[in-house]
Amino acid sequence: MGEAYNLQDIAGFLGAELAGDANCVIRRLNTLQDAQEGDLAFLANKAYAKLLASTRASAVLLEPRHAADYGGNALIVDNPYVAYARITDWFKPVREACGIHSTAVIADSAHIGDGVSIGPHAVVEDGVAIASGVVLGAGSYVGQGSSIGANSWLGPNVNIYHGVSIGSEVTIHSGAVIGADGFGFANDRGAWVKIHQLGGVEIGDRVEIGACTTIDRGALGNTVIEDGVILDNHVQIAHNVRIGENTAMAAYAGIAGSAVIGKNCIFAGQSGAVGHVTICDNVHAMARCTLSKSIDKPGSYSSGLLMYETPVWRRNAARFGQLDDLARRVKKLEKGQS
Amino acid sequence: MGEAYNLQDIAGFLGAELAGDANCVIRRLNTLQDAQEGDLAFLANKAYAKLLASTRASAVLLEPRHAADYGGNALIVDNPYVAYARITDWFKPVREACGIHSTAVIADSAHIGDGVSIGPHAVVEDGVAIASGVVLGAGSYVGQGSSIGANSWLGPNVNIYHGVSIGSEVTIHSGAVIGADGFGFANDRGAWVKIHQLGGVEIGDRVEIGACTTIDRGALGNTVIEDGVILDNHVQIAHNVRIGENTAMAAYAGIAGSAVIGKNCIFAGQSGAVGHVTICDNVHAMARCTLSKSIDKPGSYSSGLLMYETPVWRRNAARFGQLDDLARRVKKLEKGQS
Amino acid sequence: MGEAYNLQDIAGFLGAELAGDANCVIRRLNTLQDAQEGDLAFLANKAYAKLLASTRASAVLLEPRHAADYGGNALIVDNPYVAYARITDWFKPVREACGIHSTAVIADSAHIGDGVSIGPHAVVEDGVAIASGVVLGAGSYVGQGSSIGANSWLGPNVNIYHGVSIGSEVTIHSGAVIGADGFGFANDRGAWVKIHQLGGVEIGDRVEIGACTTIDRGALGNTVIEDGVILDNHVQIAHNVRIGENTAMAAYAGIAGSAVIGKNCIFAGQSGAVGHVTICDNVHAMARCTLSKSIDKPGSYSSGLLMYETPVWRRNAARFGQLDDLARRVKKLEKGQS
Repeated sequence: MGEAYNLQDIAGFLGAELAGDANCVIRRLNTLQDAQEGDLAFLANKAYAKLLASTRASAVLLEPRHAADYGGNALIVDNPYVAYARITDWFKPVREACGIHSTAVIADSAHIGDGVSIGPHAVVEDGVAIASGVVLGAGSYVGQGSSIGANSWLGPNVNIYHGVSIGSEVTIHSGAVIGADGFGFANDRGAWVKIHQLGGVEIGDRVEIGACTTIDRGALGNTVIEDGVILDNHVQIAHNVRIGENTAMAAYAGIAGSAVIGKNCIFAGQSGAVGHVTICDNVHAMARCTLSKSIDKPGSYSSGLLMYETPVWRRNAARFGQLDDLARRVKKLEKGQS
Repeated sequence: MGEAYNLQDIAGFLGAELAGDANCVIRRLNTLQDAQEGDLAFLANKAYAKLLASTRASAVLLEPRHAADYGGNALIVDNPYVAYARITDWFKPVREACGIHSTAVIADSAHIGDGVSIGPHAVVEDGVAIASGVVLGAGSYVGQGSSIGANSWLGPNVNIYHGVSIGSEVTIHSGAVIGADGFGFANDRGAWVKIHQLGGVEIGDRVEIGACTTIDRGALGNTVIEDGVILDNHVQIAHNVRIGENTAMAAYAGIAGSAVIGKNCIFAGQSGAVGHVTICDNVHAMARCTLSKSIDKPGSYSSGLLMYETPVWRRNAARFGQLDDLARRVKKLEKGQS
Repeated sequence: MGEAYNLQDIAGFLGAELAGDANCVIRRLNTLQDAQEGDLAFLANKAYAKLLASTRASAVLLEPRHAADYGGNALIVDNPYVAYARITDWFKPVREACGIHSTAVIADSAHIGDGVSIGPHAVVEDGVAIASGVVLGAGSYVGQGSSIGANSWLGPNVNIYHGVSIGSEVTIHSGAVIGADGFGFANDRGAWVKIHQLGGVEIGDRVEIGACTTIDRGALGNTVIEDGVILDNHVQIAHNVRIGENTAMAAYAGIAGSAVIGKNCIFAGQSGAVGHVTICDNVHAMARCTLSKSIDKPGSYSSGLLMYETPVWRRNAARFGQLDDLARRVKKLEKGQS
């Protein structure tokens, strides 16, 4: 923050066509509506195109089709939202490498790469390998034999159990727990006998894991999160699940044991999948939808109900338990008429 | 605990009318049913009025309309439940100020007010401002430039990222994460490009935040929690949400990005709101209800289904997918009869 | 890991009948499908019986009825899944007692039993009692006056508030929070008045508590988890709930305040119970089912909807709000015909 850039430099980084003043100074990113002088805004949704007339932004990221409508400084790109995402990297707070804090407890047998930052009170156990450029937040824990790939960033109080392999450029937020026991028990005449969870967890590159998200270790074999997967907060990935590349899951998405989820799927908030199913690539589970069977046809799947005012809802909800009866009665009526 | 009070002193604090023995000694609070000698109980729900005859409480908080039914010591107030809530403050464990533990790691540039307690292994980063009387629990983390208002209490292992502003008399329980990145990504031909989250979080006064609850930082601009909001455990507040004063949210309530929630709303367990909606004041979302559209009419909203024995449910649930067909057939029957 | 056992020794431990080579060496457990030489596999589901012909396992745990079909080394038991669970104990990573780390902060008045391991940066407050053989993970916190029974294992960054009693052989995973305040507030003309939570939490023996699971302290009196209960990740147990022996709850199961849950119940993912209900023993709440009333009949209960392709769902969901009208029209049609 506090950095300033020429519009020309930003255009060069984004591969954007520049219209207007190449020396225009950009100090912040902002929305069209809230932008002030010194701000670069973006038009990613045509519903906001009318704001072009009134925005106070010093420059705007927009598509070619909107360039003619705008007389101010512009960066013209195919996908303004992606361009905005890419340029946020220039405006994020700079995290200076702060080295290894004296209060961190690091096993002698751990291998720590160059330029690694380890915060106060972090704990790194025997045999851990932390690659160059990793940031490990204050109070975080990395269990025996786990590894973290180059330039990954783990926030404060992140928990990595033993035997977890994490790729490079991974982000993991506070409170996340990777590698706790899967929920495996056998019922012996009423009492539960714990199935010790002997597998591990493999997490690919460029994965994002939100706050308080949990990924359990495998019972036998590993739980696997492939490259480019993004998980919001409070997500639950059970033991021996596999999540395909670039799949995205919003808050409270929950995947039960041994489910195999394809690539480029999207799970909306509160959605999920039951255990042992196989979901093909490009499936979209809408909010609160449980994928209750295997799916081999890409597309959108739903369950759940729409929202009603409570008195309306109550009247109709009470009829749900009569649906089967109602259907039979309609059939009988049809027979009577024919 | 272990303290004892005269009934008269309690009456004075609560502004209650005292009936009976002003010198009656009160050592504990309890329910009408479980109360023993030395206990002050309360009648907040008329369904329990019959317990007045048998309770062993030394005194009872009750409304004027019940006072005539009760011959024991009584504190007569308009709202016994509020009076009970207020007097719990006298019976909570006393937390002695324990100063700043020698193992806490506090940046030189942090400003720490008078009478602040900071637990073992807590970490306070550069430029943080902690006002007088704050308690910061063991292992908690406060990121660069964040601030905490007077007399706020943060439990052990609470995570406050950088750029978070917290008001006074706020309570935050263990495992809560304030200011982690919002879930913002742009999709570039299948791959996700991270939108670095450049905003912060503003939390008002007298806010309560439950265990493992997450409040994400804004993408641009701040996520805002107004004064007096109460959030249970496992709540998720996404980036750029605004929650109005005194709104209450039970466990697993989830509010998606940029939603604006009014004042004095109540969100029951597992309820939520989709992104970018505006919900007016005094809306009540019932359990598992997703507010899927903006609402400008106060009142109660529902979705979800009632509970059935599974065989009954199965029979009727299977008919849900025939509902549209059923409605068309009924219409046809009606035409046939007319 | 790395240990090897004779099949005979395993048979002795499990009380299994051994068929084949008693000296066969077992180094790992595995599934029938993935097993290699040195692996002991198990046949717990007859759907996999066909894999007996091709498995490369050195030995298989199976029922008497499958023994005749299998020519390899076998351990014949009544319940192969329970036998597999029991033998996982021999293959779990050995956690060597590591004593009390020098960075742990332990109050002088705490009582620490024999053979206790306390990790780096853990904090143990005044009056805590930790029985023999307990493992307390790095960064964990145990509040004033709490107790932990013999041989319990708490992972890194577990949070135990004051006044919590935990039995023996309990497992608690990272991020779990036991004893935070219940969500109790009285509404005083719009503003919330906190009800300080004066009770505690009692947890029995052999309880398992998953990552990021929360169990709130009682308002008055205790929240109680009986012996043998198993809770997955992200479970929420509100104040003054009682959970009966051997009840199991999957991820996101949520039990509201003062509910009493029987023994040997099963709560599937995202299920729950509303406040103040009483649920008898042996109730099974299916996924996303809210037990909205007291239940005195054992069995399975459901709500929620099946999964549909979104266009099909949308067509039918829109009819839900017409259900009551539809039922009335069918009734009218029936009158017309009669």
